[in-house]
Amino acid sequence: MPNGAPRAAPPVALRWDGRTLHLLDQTLLPFREEWLTLTGAADTAAAIRRLAVRGAPLIGIAAAYGLAMEVMAQPGLGALERGAEELRGARPTAVNLAHAVDRVHAACLASGPATIAGVARGAAQALHAEEDAASAATATAGADRLAGASRILTICNTGALATGGEGSALAVIRELHRRAEGGAGGDGARGAPISVLACETRPLLQGARLTVWELDRAGIPCTLIADGAAAGLIARGEVDAVIVGCDRVAANGDVANKVGTYGLALAARASDVPFVVAGPTSTVDPATPDGGAIEIEERDPDEVRRVLGTPTTLEHVAVRNPAFDVTPASLVTALVTERGVAEPVDRDAIAQLLAPALDVSR
Amino acid sequence: MPNGAPRAAPPVALRWDGRTLHLLDQTLLPFREEWLTLTGAADTAAAIRRLAVRGAPLIGIAAAYGLAMEVMAQPGLGALERGAEELRGARPTAVNLAHAVDRVHAACLASGPATIAGVARGAAQALHAEEDAASAATATAGADRLAGASRILTICNTGALATGGEGSALAVIRELHRRAEGGAGGDGARGAPISVLACETRPLLQGARLTVWELDRAGIPCTLIADGAAAGLIARGEVDAVIVGCDRVAANGDVANKVGTYGLALAARASDVPFVVAGPTSTVDPATPDGGAIEIEERDPDEVRRVLGTPTTLEHVAVRNPAFDVTPASLVTALVTERGVAEPVDRDAIAQLLAPALDVSR
Repeated sequence: MPNGAPRAAPPVALRWDGRTLHLLDQTLLPFREEWLTLTGAADTAAAIRRLAVRGAPLIGIAAAYGLAMEVMAQPGLGALERGAEELRGARPTAVNLAHAVDRVHAACLASGPATIAGVARGAAQALHAEEDAASAATATAGADRLAGASRILTICNTGALATGGEGSALAVIRELHRRAEGGAGGDGARGAPISVLACETRPLLQGARLTVWELDRAGIPCTLIADGAAAGLIARGEVDAVIVGCDRVAANGDVANKVGTYGLALAARASDVPFVVAGPTSTVDPATPDGGAIEIEERDPDEVRRVLGTPTTLEHVAVRNPAFDVTPASLVTALVTERGVAEPVDRDAIAQLLAPALDVSR
Repeated sequence: MPNGAPRAAPPVALRWDGRTLHLLDQTLLPFREEWLTLTGAADTAAAIRRLAVRGAPLIGIAAAYGLAMEVMAQPGLGALERGAEELRGARPTAVNLAHAVDRVHAACLASGPATIAGVARGAAQALHAEEDAASAATATAGADRLAGASRILTICNTGALATGGEGSALAVIRELHRRAEGGAGGDGARGAPISVLACETRPLLQGARLTVWELDRAGIPCTLIADGAAAGLIARGEVDAVIVGCDRVAANGDVANKVGTYGLALAARASDVPFVVAGPTSTVDPATPDGGAIEIEERDPDEVRRVLGTPTTLEHVAVRNPAFDVTPASLVTALVTERGVAEPVDRDAIAQLLAPALDVSR
């Protein structure tokens, strides 16, 4: 535990019992807490598609377990290939999903028929454990980088509901809050009290539904705003830092994240406010040269035509519903990962983050 | 009618029968069309406060009639002062409201007790007629300025539901559409076909509810987007021009408009897309030196906590709900009014717009 601070228990969104995967159905939060029990690739892919599980790192973990369960049920290459294909196609933008599937897939290919089930399970569990550890390390690195920032603006949900562990951007906010409360830092030094401006994050309201719920449970002061209000509040000097998660980071540092993120980056830059992206290096894709190469998922028009089932417009109106946008690296002040901070964010800094760790003490 | 083109009948949001004011209740659109009948200052102020009538020019017209009805019912200075105070306080940001009340008020003060009722009614009717004419002239000037633009992005509702006549920004879009259809221009020249990206405009969804409804009735192709999607679509080259209305323009050209507008201006500038503001000169306030001096209305938190009555978050979460933001003049490509176009937008250009017209032919 960094700095020896006790961590208030974050909500748990995913539980693995060794055989089946239990997922908190995030589409029902914060109004109902219902758990899904998943047993294979198909139901896991369906849960990913309808956002019952979401957040780039967490869909990677879920997909790894989904493929492992498929192979555990039918230990062979047929199930492996079928399951991998089904899961890879569930959502296109987050690279974690493809990376997680590829990792379990590769481990299985390297094993024999007698061991494939155990290998699949082990690969998924290892990935899950790594993501938990990455979250904690990201929180520490991010809180170090943002030391002194008090009023934080964020979008979407990047907490325990989105990743392994406590989250990415929201884990940084939790760590800043712990330090501000004086529970961390070793010397008991208190930081400035933390408050969060949470964008509601239309169309699916992950900010209003999930981030507000997580911050409320954690006792961190939180104020909800319409997405359109963020830029004006930044301009009025009400924000010390913007911190967001990421769904894919390209090799040059361009960031795909929840639609609305790019506008926050523009507003932060216009007011000289740090714009920080946090996420595990599993979200960085060296095979994607830049943001222009990232496929942007276009989702169901009814997500925009309705809000939690309530129609807001004419039923037949045409809709564009991109789930993500791309923020150019030039607008990102720093990229915070479990391997440290890239700042400024460019191709070299990204390559350095991804390079195998060197033990310079040898 | 400019260019001799027939104008498709826009929806009517306000009717004056000579004694009472009839308002289409915009909070119920597009699902129900119900009319309110108002008879004085108090019920008119209440309708303005709850956005049954909205749009800076239209609340000015409604307030003028509200005060006129108050004075017609009780022809004297007591009713005049009481009504003026009540109406001025209904909403703080749009200057049209204060200007309209001041105008009827001043006309009444200059009249005697025997004529005050007729003078009040006449002043309100004159203001209404001027706003109708301003809308038509603004549409022509804006369509001239944006000739060639095809894919237009807008926010909130700036149509016949927001002003006298056909609107401000939406009137420009209607005029561009008429020209594209070949019905205008005298020579029958067609412009590029017009399509509109409409921001839904949280929290009260004036884009999803009202702009979509107006464009649908007018047969103008319209695509609805979440507010957060606008910046990314602009960056992807899908927008030729952004055009918005205004709730107050300061003497230096800073523009207060629906929350979210400033973010659109930043995104437009980042992609070299024209960002045009349209509105009658009644929205320009020479007494407001710059955007920092504009009072920004903070509205009911439940507007953010709910969508058309459906809760979207925890009931007790804190909310910031500014109705407007301020776009600095430096980000505004052009300000289009019934008196012509200010471009670039600065203190001198604004002063020139407001100067009494000179007949240079003499």
